[in-house]
Amino acid sequence: MKGPTLNFRRHPSKDNGIKSVEILAKPETPPPKFIEESNMEFNILASEKLPNYAKLDLFHRAVYPFMLLAQCFAVMPLLGIRESNPRRVRFAYKSVPMFVTVIFMTATSTLFLGMFTRLVNIGITAKNFVGLVFFGCVLTAYVVFIRLANKWPAVIRYWTKTEMVFTKPPYELPKKNLSRRVQLAALAIIGLSLGEHALYQVSAILSYKRRLNICTNITEVASFDNYIQRNYDYVFEILPYSPVLAALMLLINLACTFVWNYMDLFIMMISKGLSYRFEQITARIRKLEHEEVCESVFIQIREHYVKLCELLEFVDSAMSSLILLSCVNNLYFVCYQLLNVFNKLRWPINYVYFWYSLLYLIGRTAFVFLTAADINEESRRGLGVLRRVSSRSWCVEVERLIFQMTTQTVALSGKKFYFLTRRLLFGMAGTIVTYELVLLQFDEPNRRKGLQPLCA
Amino acid sequence: MKGPTLNFRRHPSKDNGIKSVEILAKPETPPPKFIEESNMEFNILASEKLPNYAKLDLFHRAVYPFMLLAQCFAVMPLLGIRESNPRRVRFAYKSVPMFVTVIFMTATSTLFLGMFTRLVNIGITAKNFVGLVFFGCVLTAYVVFIRLANKWPAVIRYWTKTEMVFTKPPYELPKKNLSRRVQLAALAIIGLSLGEHALYQVSAILSYKRRLNICTNITEVASFDNYIQRNYDYVFEILPYSPVLAALMLLINLACTFVWNYMDLFIMMISKGLSYRFEQITARIRKLEHEEVCESVFIQIREHYVKLCELLEFVDSAMSSLILLSCVNNLYFVCYQLLNVFNKLRWPINYVYFWYSLLYLIGRTAFVFLTAADINEESRRGLGVLRRVSSRSWCVEVERLIFQMTTQTVALSGKKFYFLTRRLLFGMAGTIVTYELVLLQFDEPNRRKGLQPLCA
Amino acid sequence: MKGPTLNFRRHPSKDNGIKSVEILAKPETPPPKFIEESNMEFNILASEKLPNYAKLDLFHRAVYPFMLLAQCFAVMPLLGIRESNPRRVRFAYKSVPMFVTVIFMTATSTLFLGMFTRLVNIGITAKNFVGLVFFGCVLTAYVVFIRLANKWPAVIRYWTKTEMVFTKPPYELPKKNLSRRVQLAALAIIGLSLGEHALYQVSAILSYKRRLNICTNITEVASFDNYIQRNYDYVFEILPYSPVLAALMLLINLACTFVWNYMDLFIMMISKGLSYRFEQITARIRKLEHEEVCESVFIQIREHYVKLCELLEFVDSAMSSLILLSCVNNLYFVCYQLLNVFNKLRWPINYVYFWYSLLYLIGRTAFVFLTAADINEESRRGLGVLRRVSSRSWCVEVERLIFQMTTQTVALSGKKFYFLTRRLLFGMAGTIVTYELVLLQFDEPNRRKGLQPLCA
Amino acid sequence: MKGPTLNFRRHPSKDNGIKSVEILAKPETPPPKFIEESNMEFNILASEKLPNYAKLDLFHRAVYPFMLLAQCFAVMPLLGIRESNPRRVRFAYKSVPMFVTVIFMTATSTLFLGMFTRLVNIGITAKNFVGLVFFGCVLTAYVVFIRLANKWPAVIRYWTKTEMVFTKPPYELPKKNLSRRVQLAALAIIGLSLGEHALYQVSAILSYKRRLNICTNITEVASFDNYIQRNYDYVFEILPYSPVLAALMLLINLACTFVWNYMDLFIMMISKGLSYRFEQITARIRKLEHEEVCESVFIQIREHYVKLCELLEFVDSAMSSLILLSCVNNLYFVCYQLLNVFNKLRWPINYVYFWYSLLYLIGRTAFVFLTAADINEESRRGLGVLRRVSSRSWCVEVERLIFQMTTQTVALSGKKFYFLTRRLLFGMAGTIVTYELVLLQFDEPNRRKGLQPLCA
Repeated sequence: MKGPTLNFRRHPSKDNGIKSVEILAKPETPPPKFIEESNMEFNILASEKLPNYAKLDLFHRAVYPFMLLAQCFAVMPLLGIRESNPRRVRFAYKSVPMFVTVIFMTATSTLFLGMFTRLVNIGITAKNFVGLVFFGCVLTAYVVFIRLANKWPAVIRYWTKTEMVFTKPPYELPKKNLSRRVQLAALAIIGLSLGEHALYQVSAILSYKRRLNICTNITEVASFDNYIQRNYDYVFEILPYSPVLAALMLLINLACTFVWNYMDLFIMMISKGLSYRFEQITARIRKLEHEEVCESVFIQIREHYVKLCELLEFVDSAMSSLILLSCVNNLYFVCYQLLNVFNKLRWPINYVYFWYSLLYLIGRTAFVFLTAADINEESRRGLGVLRRVSSRSWCVEVERLIFQMTTQTVALSGKKFYFLTRRLLFGMAGTIVTYELVLLQFDEPNRRKGLQPLCA
Repeated sequence: MKGPTLNFRRHPSKDNGIKSVEILAKPETPPPKFIEESNMEFNILASEKLPNYAKLDLFHRAVYPFMLLAQCFAVMPLLGIRESNPRRVRFAYKSVPMFVTVIFMTATSTLFLGMFTRLVNIGITAKNFVGLVFFGCVLTAYVVFIRLANKWPAVIRYWTKTEMVFTKPPYELPKKNLSRRVQLAALAIIGLSLGEHALYQVSAILSYKRRLNICTNITEVASFDNYIQRNYDYVFEILPYSPVLAALMLLINLACTFVWNYMDLFIMMISKGLSYRFEQITARIRKLEHEEVCESVFIQIREHYVKLCELLEFVDSAMSSLILLSCVNNLYFVCYQLLNVFNKLRWPINYVYFWYSLLYLIGRTAFVFLTAADINEESRRGLGVLRRVSSRSWCVEVERLIFQMTTQTVALSGKKFYFLTRRLLFGMAGTIVTYELVLLQFDEPNRRKGLQPLCA
Repeated sequence: MKGPTLNFRRHPSKDNGIKSVEILAKPETPPPKFIEESNMEFNILASEKLPNYAKLDLFHRAVYPFMLLAQCFAVMPLLGIRESNPRRVRFAYKSVPMFVTVIFMTATSTLFLGMFTRLVNIGITAKNFVGLVFFGCVLTAYVVFIRLANKWPAVIRYWTKTEMVFTKPPYELPKKNLSRRVQLAALAIIGLSLGEHALYQVSAILSYKRRLNICTNITEVASFDNYIQRNYDYVFEILPYSPVLAALMLLINLACTFVWNYMDLFIMMISKGLSYRFEQITARIRKLEHEEVCESVFIQIREHYVKLCELLEFVDSAMSSLILLSCVNNLYFVCYQLLNVFNKLRWPINYVYFWYSLLYLIGRTAFVFLTAADINEESRRGLGVLRRVSSRSWCVEVERLIFQMTTQTVALSGKKFYFLTRRLLFGMAGTIVTYELVLLQFDEPNRRKGLQPLCA
Repeated sequence: MKGPTLNFRRHPSKDNGIKSVEILAKPETPPPKFIEESNMEFNILASEKLPNYAKLDLFHRAVYPFMLLAQCFAVMPLLGIRESNPRRVRFAYKSVPMFVTVIFMTATSTLFLGMFTRLVNIGITAKNFVGLVFFGCVLTAYVVFIRLANKWPAVIRYWTKTEMVFTKPPYELPKKNLSRRVQLAALAIIGLSLGEHALYQVSAILSYKRRLNICTNITEVASFDNYIQRNYDYVFEILPYSPVLAALMLLINLACTFVWNYMDLFIMMISKGLSYRFEQITARIRKLEHEEVCESVFIQIREHYVKLCELLEFVDSAMSSLILLSCVNNLYFVCYQLLNVFNKLRWPINYVYFWYSLLYLIGRTAFVFLTAADINEESRRGLGVLRRVSSRSWCVEVERLIFQMTTQTVALSGKKFYFLTRRLLFGMAGTIVTYELVLLQFDEPNRRKGLQPLCA
């Protein structure tokens, strides 16, 4: 799943404040009118008494360290991501981060092409197809992230404006605040994926060394150059070998692995950010229990709930391509790795890497699904209390709120083809098992052949 | 997927004004009473001050050029399709277009029979079955289109009457008007399908020539006659060969390809026409935001919404057979072509044709599904605004509208067996993958055999 | 799928008036209280001015000829089925029809046992399993019909009481009355199934004769006795052969075929009976359009609608076992026959029988599903009109009716595991295709073997 | 599916009253506030006039004998389970039952390890995997039950508090009271599973004896020691053999079988307990028919209904892991056993055991699903009567109750991935058939090999 690096130095994304092209991405379902209105209100806020964004429990603040990290790998080329004021986040086609991204994409394309020519030569099969899918996914992810970056300034402003109300009473801070939650998820994913990448390299190097030790008929000498040329031969079939190229290729390979993991991480962070707010609404509803509540309170709660749903819609329309890509990617790799469960491997380290990688993959897929499904779960958790509202407090607003919570599918979606809910995960698990059973049968002849001779 | 032509000249469908048999097709779900009423109202309009239909943004005006084109291939034999007044559209069993259609159908039947006798001789397999399915689908499509033509005058009148209200304020024209939209979709499909057909011929001719060049043991001389006899041998097993017959066969083959594509195109145009109106309702609802709206406005909006839903029901009951046929047809061909992905082909041009054809097929299938699913999406897009209606403007009519939008599945259907929504497409994709995996396994022995000797 | 007859003479079911055991079957979901109440009301009606049941358009009148016919084959052993007054219908364990049923069941069990011992000897495979399934289904059907007969008196009384209101104004008779509809469906099924059975015998006899003509090494003489012994060998392995036994076996075989078809026919008749009443409600609602309707009318309509839904529930709880059995049976046989599509057969008459039988089977399955799904379709057809009720006529009762029509799944069910709707049929078709593809692959080795030698 | 015993004596769980660690398990969806409130009310009740729990028809009283039995096998290590007052039920990590549980778990782990090392040596296949799954499931079940025991004191108190209201008028005792129902289900499962275990031992012993009788080349002497060493060889590869160990291993094996069955039994008992209360609500609603009911009654009914739903939620959040484990376990074993249906076995007793075991497994799976689905069925059974509420009695509370019953999925769930309803069972059956068909094809080569030589 990995490939080498090209000659390339990433320019730091700091010098991003030069051009401030105002990009108001046209959302696919444009929230009618209030964008302008909100901006206006937003501006007034900004001029009159600018809120101290840095101290507030805002999504932008929670998420910006990891978006900065992503910029190191040329993902989501935005300007002003480090500013505490979300209004300063901008996107420009003619900017340094964008330039870096293009360079990374070119490098990845080279790996993709190298892989492709190699496969055409030896014949594409369902088995060796996987490398192409990996680089193809990463390339698509780069494009999707650029389009998302284009929409991001509008998204993050709208988001900040919507969540502003949740930072003040009567809403309370949950025990674990948003930044902590996002951090925990992100660090877990980053740590585990670093582990996976390291283990991959260790496994490759050890296999390489053992082979040279055992096979006396091979006259190669173990060296970094030889190792790279053997393991990334598909690149050096279309490029001349040089140590610098090799190092760059390793870098790009790392970047690809990062992007491949960051897709899921980004969806997770978004999901955490949204379900956090629904949780606050639920908490507020819970506090109303056993109280006489006047209609105006319910009017306000419903208003906030509707606004949150609209934010979700808006975010969803910007994120849908990424979600679709991530799901297809995860399903493909889970199926592919499960298929290899019964394969024989040569060295123990290969088994260690394989099982780590498989479990990590399944865990990550389940985690991203469950985190996204949490939005759906959280959005209807207030129902229980609302159903117990006594007949004295009962009013049209409660009825409307219950009706909306009951009938609306509040969840992130893959281009509205499916909604990320817990039931979907169940259905998908069933489908994956079916695929796996058929594929295992399909793959049996290969499996029976066993390992190929080591020293050929 | 193609076949030859019979001796036949298409009579132009211009002389269609002679007999004016009044056909009031009995819809399967007859909209009670108001058909007559609507006609009456319609008549009054027609006599008192006839609206200048040609200038209005009506569905009939948007769609008639392509229905005219279809008549060139004997699809939907209607009279008066060129008139700007939809009332003039008529259907008659004893008419010139109908006569032309019968001739085309006879010719197609001949191709079908030729294919059938051939297959019975060499043994029907899942693989060579495809030609039979192609001609069978086209024949069925002709019959379905005749039945649809029979209902069309009633449909287009009802449609025009319903959409009249949307051509006046308070409804506004969306940026891209209906004609533009229909044209774009239609030209794309027609252009791409022409490309597919041309590429098919080029691929067949080049393969034919190369074979003659290489195989020295074959004494045939490359000529049009020989080419036709080789490639359409199944026809000339039941008919004597003559150059005129050959030319006709090519024409009929073209007609078949047209019909095969027109099914999907027609569904697309219908879908565009319907979702356009729902879009106008959504736009009108959006404009009401942040305003104090009195109940009468909501009464009117709901009325128009209900009428549109009824129009959809009515159109759906007329179109359902076509939708069912198109879906089955598309699913079959997508499965069949996907199955051939791993097959080896002899010449590069064959690969070019195969991949163009496969991508075109998948694209067209996805396009027709998504266009139809748009009706469903568009019909509930007003919900967001309606949910934000303040408690002052809230009234029973808004409640009814929300309830209807939430609970009713507003979508075209395949005989009510399934509704064309985005979720369906997702489910179908999952099912196709299952089928494909099983079929690939099934087909493996054939695939392993590889290419048969060229010069046998 | 067929077997022979045992020595047995059916006693006519006329002498059924002797014992009148009052059986008030306890329904699984007992309609609370009103059973007694209804009976009381029913009794009053019966004593004061007995309605002329014979002249009314009642379900019992429509269905009794076919239930009488079924009694000839010992299905549903009821007494008093010929009486026009549904109150006279009784069930008794100690009665002549019940005795006849037991004899038929014993005979069928013998066939089942013969088949079973034969299969155990030659080894049960997925292919030869079918005979066992056939007789097993028929036996189960007999049991299920006895249990249904036990509940039938309660069902038909409740049904009659519920439908009484639909025989008077304001409800109108639809164009085709209930008896006509039931008759059409029943005659079609009976005619086609007779054709199937006859064709089966013709096919078997012709195959038998041809074989004797061609195979000179076989010294058998073509005779009725020899024919029976050859074709029903499994019976005469456990019973001694005698011509009387042979004739009886043919009779029992005919009875089994009848029962096998009658399951579906019965479900169809029930469905027609129920959807007919929903159609009348829809018609009544339609007539209200464009009128100012006072609430009391809607109260009445809703009341009748609810009662019809309860009747459906009650009938469903009695019928569910039969529906489950019929569905499983149909799915199994459709899968089995589809699997044989690619098999080679010896004589043309075998092909004729096979294709007739396959198409009949699929047609019957689709027909019974669609007829049952019609209840569901018909039950919500009034929604369109109700949605257009103007805001002046709008009242709580209309709201309740719309809510109920929208949210309740009004349909026959298989023990509540699934509801017979059009969408189910679509899902099932997809599943059958999956099964078929896997099974075809499974069966390929057998198929490749081809026909076995004729004269072995 | 079985394994041997370790040297171990179970300490009776009687001495459980020493430490009374107050554990208020934090429920995953904490019912807000009222836990304390309920406890308070509970305490007042307890101090002022303690209800005679022993005489009431409470869930705790119905279920405690079987929980005591489970403690004999170290399942759910609780203290004070025998007390009639549910408040006395406690859980402590440092307690005798917990200690016993740990010992059992250690022993089971040994069996698991033995099996695992054996399989690694001979190579893991899909076929011999089953033993590992069995012991793995049992181990997981022990852990799940410990976590459940931790939550149980809170659950049973909340449960008792909620059901208190149903023990008094206006609620009536259904004919069969809760204890009877739970007893019937439990005794059936326990009896049948004992039969299964006994039959397993008989089958193993007879096979062992026959083999020694027939195979003259084997010099072993039939003895208990030899039998154990042959049949549980995987244990004595990692442990030295001794008769005491053998006896203990048989005991642990029995315990594993018990746990394996108790999972399902426990879910069934919970389901019976919940559906019983919904049944009482339904009965109460039914009694209101044909009466003029004032709103306060509906307020009360709705309140009880909502409380019951909350209890279900609470129980579900505690039970979900167990339900998930039980479902996965059942699906796996049903698939595995179905796969063996066409396998040849050596002795008749093997067939007897196999078929008994298969039918028992399917029966138990269906039974646990149907019992759980009953909650769902029962929770909406009141709808019929509520729909008939006349327009005079109609009030907002009825509307709310109908709305809730219609839209809420009241059912136990597997971590919200799926809800245990009757429709789920139908979908699962379809999926199992698909799996089975693919697996059968997969397994064919093994099946064709037939039996291995007896005396090898």
